Amino acid sequence: MKMLKDDERLDYLLGEPLRIIQSPSVFSFSLDAVLLAKFVYVPIQKGNLVDLCAGNGVIPLLLSRRTKGHIHGVEIQERLHDMAERSVQYNNLSEQITMHHEDLNKILPVLGHDKYDVVTCNPPYFLTPAKEIQNDNEHYAIARHEIMCTLEDVVRVSSQLLKQGGKAAFVHRPGRLLDILTLMRKYRIEPKRLQFVYPKAGREANTILVEGIKGGSPDLKLLPPLVVYQDNNEYTDELKKMIDGE
Amino acid sequence: MKMLKDDERLDYLLGEPLRIIQSPSVFSFSLDAVLLAKFVYVPIQKGNLVDLCAGNGVIPLLLSRRTKGHIHGVEIQERLHDMAERSVQYNNLSEQITMHHEDLNKILPVLGHDKYDVVTCNPPYFLTPAKEIQNDNEHYAIARHEIMCTLEDVVRVSSQLLKQGGKAAFVHRPGRLLDILTLMRKYRIEPKRLQFVYPKAGREANTILVEGIKGGSPDLKLLPPLVVYQDNNEYTDELKKMIDGE
Repeated sequence: MKMLKDDERLDYLLGEPLRIIQSPSVFSFSLDAVLLAKFVYVPIQKGNLVDLCAGNGVIPLLLSRRTKGHIHGVEIQERLHDMAERSVQYNNLSEQITMHHEDLNKILPVLGHDKYDVVTCNPPYFLTPAKEIQNDNEHYAIARHEIMCTLEDVVRVSSQLLKQGGKAAFVHRPGRLLDILTLMRKYRIEPKRLQFVYPKAGREANTILVEGIKGGSPDLKLLPPLVVYQDNNEYTDELKKMIDGE
Repeated sequence: MKMLKDDERLDYLLGEPLRIIQSPSVFSFSLDAVLLAKFVYVPIQKGNLVDLCAGNGVIPLLLSRRTKGHIHGVEIQERLHDMAERSVQYNNLSEQITMHHEDLNKILPVLGHDKYDVVTCNPPYFLTPAKEIQNDNEHYAIARHEIMCTLEDVVRVSSQLLKQGGKAAFVHRPGRLLDILTLMRKYRIEPKRLQFVYPKAGREANTILVEGIKGGSPDLKLLPPLVVYQDNNEYTDELKKMIDGE
């Protein structure tokens, strides 16, 4: 099989013995996805996990290093799904990871209700803008804007997939904190762990990580802040430790 | 006038040329109140401010150092109100600060609707427990538990007091973050600035500071984390700077 197409590269996944297919003209995974894959609690020995808006599969690949459970990835964009599929094959993970080329709003008949231990999602961050100011590159536009699914779709579908006591973890921008917390509670995923990510010490946070439990009782913990870069633009020790292994 | 009663002391307010009357058998102000008084945006030259659940008046006293506006304090407990009143007199601030001995649920006819630029509140943190496990000291119990007012009362009355564009700032425990954000939005105080306070680096946050604008548009900023103590249990430099002056 021809593994790489067009301008694709076989990139390393920081701190992991895995490779991932990426293309600068389509979409590359972000640090946010890596943080989410490290942040979420996962069952170690077994279980069923789903990653929505899986893109080129970075979160399923990273989760495979933390759990022996089965991981489903759901991605609506054919090109990204195809890259993810080939990365799974390249890493010999086809037994553990199943990539689905599907709209998350149509995934329930495929995956089933109330069955999953964990759902993760690094969703599109931005509300859908007027057509003319959307990103010219359709791949980027769909990944970044709520064109194909809204935040409410993500939270609702996550809740429907989860069994009682199952966990959903999301990464998003601070401006949507209130929306995401409100939606989680609306769909009975009680927020339990919240962490703010700061690009540098003394700056405002630019990313939030949140995990909730389906049917959980209210008791939100605010984790220590995570600072990404030192003043010299190198990763902080805590970030290196987070990426390099637990 | 006899300034001090019973076991009262005349304490210093950290970093300020003010004194405050306190009593260990009634209630002493907490660092949380100090943080809130430093956190909230205030108009400097003029304006009308209200502090609800004012206790012994620590927030009105501290706000008087940051604004020339008029500050109202509202406290339901007679003993605490009396201490606050005497502290205002001791500091010669009777022109700028008016203390009201009143239930916040009955304060609107006294103070009026839609008139205030700023409302602050360091409310009781805990839901009302069964009578037998409430704090034996009634003063502490009322200050700490939602006996005389609920969080929803605080947010609703704050909104009613504020003019459009006015700011409300609250301090609370992390476990109530979702409740307070949800209530703020319910009463049209859009959360705009949120800060987590950590007792030490690497620990979970134990306090939240949040400010919203009545009728504001959604755009929440997550401020840099505030760490209170160094490992040697001294205040951190950032906390000292915050307390000592701006």
